[in-house]
Amino acid sequence: MNNSITVQNLIALIESADFKTISNLVRNMPETDMAELTLELSTQQGLAMLAMLSAPLRARLFSNLQFGQQDALLAQMQLVETVELFTYLPSDDRTDLYKRMAPEQRTNLLATLARKQREDIVKMASYQEGTVGAEATSDYLSVSGELTVAEALDSVRQQAPDKETIYTLYVVDESHRLQGTVSLRDLVLADPQHTLESLMTRDVITAKAEWPREEAAKLISRYDLLSVPVINGGDKLIGIVTVDDAMDVVDQETTEDFHKMGATLDFGKGHGITGDFSLKTATTSLLYRKRVFWLVLLVFGNIFSGAGIAYFEETIEAYIALVFFLPLLVDSGGNAGSQSATLMVRALATGDVVIRDWARMLGREFMVAVMLGLTMALAVSTIGIFRGGYEIAMVVSLSMILIVVMGSVIGMSLPFILSRMKLDPAAASAPLITSIADAAGVLIYFSIAVTILGSPV
Amino acid sequence: MNNSITVQNLIALIESADFKTISNLVRNMPETDMAELTLELSTQQGLAMLAMLSAPLRARLFSNLQFGQQDALLAQMQLVETVELFTYLPSDDRTDLYKRMAPEQRTNLLATLARKQREDIVKMASYQEGTVGAEATSDYLSVSGELTVAEALDSVRQQAPDKETIYTLYVVDESHRLQGTVSLRDLVLADPQHTLESLMTRDVITAKAEWPREEAAKLISRYDLLSVPVINGGDKLIGIVTVDDAMDVVDQETTEDFHKMGATLDFGKGHGITGDFSLKTATTSLLYRKRVFWLVLLVFGNIFSGAGIAYFEETIEAYIALVFFLPLLVDSGGNAGSQSATLMVRALATGDVVIRDWARMLGREFMVAVMLGLTMALAVSTIGIFRGGYEIAMVVSLSMILIVVMGSVIGMSLPFILSRMKLDPAAASAPLITSIADAAGVLIYFSIAVTILGSPV
Repeated sequence: MNNSITVQNLIALIESADFKTISNLVRNMPETDMAELTLELSTQQGLAMLAMLSAPLRARLFSNLQFGQQDALLAQMQLVETVELFTYLPSDDRTDLYKRMAPEQRTNLLATLARKQREDIVKMASYQEGTVGAEATSDYLSVSGELTVAEALDSVRQQAPDKETIYTLYVVDESHRLQGTVSLRDLVLADPQHTLESLMTRDVITAKAEWPREEAAKLISRYDLLSVPVINGGDKLIGIVTVDDAMDVVDQETTEDFHKMGATLDFGKGHGITGDFSLKTATTSLLYRKRVFWLVLLVFGNIFSGAGIAYFEETIEAYIALVFFLPLLVDSGGNAGSQSATLMVRALATGDVVIRDWARMLGREFMVAVMLGLTMALAVSTIGIFRGGYEIAMVVSLSMILIVVMGSVIGMSLPFILSRMKLDPAAASAPLITSIADAAGVLIYFSIAVTILGSPV
Repeated sequence: MNNSITVQNLIALIESADFKTISNLVRNMPETDMAELTLELSTQQGLAMLAMLSAPLRARLFSNLQFGQQDALLAQMQLVETVELFTYLPSDDRTDLYKRMAPEQRTNLLATLARKQREDIVKMASYQEGTVGAEATSDYLSVSGELTVAEALDSVRQQAPDKETIYTLYVVDESHRLQGTVSLRDLVLADPQHTLESLMTRDVITAKAEWPREEAAKLISRYDLLSVPVINGGDKLIGIVTVDDAMDVVDQETTEDFHKMGATLDFGKGHGITGDFSLKTATTSLLYRKRVFWLVLLVFGNIFSGAGIAYFEETIEAYIALVFFLPLLVDSGGNAGSQSATLMVRALATGDVVIRDWARMLGREFMVAVMLGLTMALAVSTIGIFRGGYEIAMVVSLSMILIVVMGSVIGMSLPFILSRMKLDPAAASAPLITSIADAAGVLIYFSIAVTILGSPV
């Protein structure tokens, strides 16, 4: 890792138009590091630097930049420069960039591009954001099954410069339907005279273009693949998803789940910027919008707890010692519920648990919750005796058991219910569970109090 | 994907000792699917099935089984069978299995293994659980830089059957220090007469054996690698971490973070079973132990809130309308805090934010919290006027602003503080934040009430 170059060095090189040194840097530094360095340049400096590079190097650097930076640079480019850039960009980056362009820019660009590229862009841009198709790249190696191993290796050598991965060859028929795959590993080890047809794996694991994108990532993770082929409704091969893109998808989907569990909104999907959220660079306004919806909604949710307390006002006035235990009891329900919900949301996300497991898991959850409730009742009863005497201790212990069981059952069930309703289970956030459990907890607590201590008159 | 075979089919094949069909199945079905099917067999059936396979196929199936199942099968094997299994298992699976064996079993096994394997196992088992070294496999391709491309390809063909990946060749010197890497891609494209030394990348991205294992996964994800070489203190190459293992590490570390955020304990590390947690198959007792610690601890934490309320008992009795707003106000602090903490924990986990960003982010957090507090104060003031009149509305609005700001600042700071203390920031769980914010909220609310409404006498 060459970390010796600073932004100041780079700016000096740009200003002295030292295109040789700059080209060498871009060629030899890890692409991600180079892109990070470029992030600190002004748009004008960035343009000047890009202009000093050969077209393939320029495209390589550009494809590693952040979306915002790409858009800023593109806005300053001439049409002829844009066309050259598009010719060299990897298919998936090219499609993403195209989708972020204004309609009239798109039309101008398409009119100027070579037919093959134009068709590829229009086709790849047609898949809805968030699907496997939208994640796919069309830069894969496809070959005919009739080739011999030696011929296939020649084909690999010819096609390699334009391909994202050459470690899997996709064997297709004349209508581009996927017939099988051959790994470069097998190709290198095989007899040069054999045909690919005799060598290829026919039971290929594939992803459908219209599936949610995380399904392709799950296949890659489950079967330890380097890439997964993507097919459309007619079983035609339209592209591949590579393992590095799958890792990014997993990362972004996990961040989404985290944010939802924390009761914040996700603005990614449908804006073509899925997962581009960075807390470090987020604006005050974006953070405000992410957070305000649930906070205000939960205020109104908590009115139920308040109303519950108000309903029992006379009981509280008669037995003011009860108030001491109020936060402790209602919070325990929320805490138990948050635990259950968090365990369940993650298990649903990884596929460890599926909807049909619900009934079976409910029984176990009930058992665990009763054990937890008993333990906590024991802890709290000693405080109860000390602060309010025997009767209060009984009210508090009994409430604790019921509240913990209620909280747990709600917490483990809500993600299932959301999932069943085709909503994201991660919306069962800790704050939401807490609000529900609070309201229910207030009712349970004071109802038990009235039953045991008697109505105040 | 061949899903036509059921467990009943498989059992029938085992009982009729149809080793040919079984071998074909194991050879052709995706390993993960086959392993999942095997999971439903009894240990005796599993042993019978393994006995029907050739040694390499047996090792391949075995390495895909769950740890518990591996241990059960191993317990029934003769020493000679165990030795054969160890000879064919991939290095990382072999080491994991060895680490789970009883001390006397280990000694017996080591005494019987070939010297080379014995040394490899002892070396690879010496890295502490949770480090990069413990994740590494020693099944990589190492070559001398003096080889020509043609010679290197021959070496690849010879070594390939035993290696996890052949897509990167590691060039080492005579003391096994890493000199550079050559990808199979470059090898296939290069002139056969060139030497590896003239071809190899010298600025190699490496991971240190003693780093936490997620650091290797982060390098693979950041630089889009298929594997990362692992070096020890003396710069010697000790193994590699492959991208599929990196995906598993990310998955397991994320699950850990989720569980911690839900205030449950993580028992993985140090037991050699990191990440093997499955909610689906977890026992009641394991779930109880995961959850009881934080629940009971938080009960005692909530005593502070209770004590706060008890302290203001007279104020509450005098202005009983205040109780209606209690859950709403204190929960808002907890909710705002949970949001901040969740955003921050994830950003720290992905490396989006680092410790030194704290001061800069605190200012923005404060701004966002004030905006949120004002919005919520507005919402709640209308209810305040309706339920308690103008003065109560003022108490409630003012409390809301302060409570939301306080909750947010605590929520965003606690993960930083934990991180600073070398603790896991994910321990700043929603329930913990809620408890802290509740106690602080009670104090803020009633203090403002006493100030505005006057002390009750």
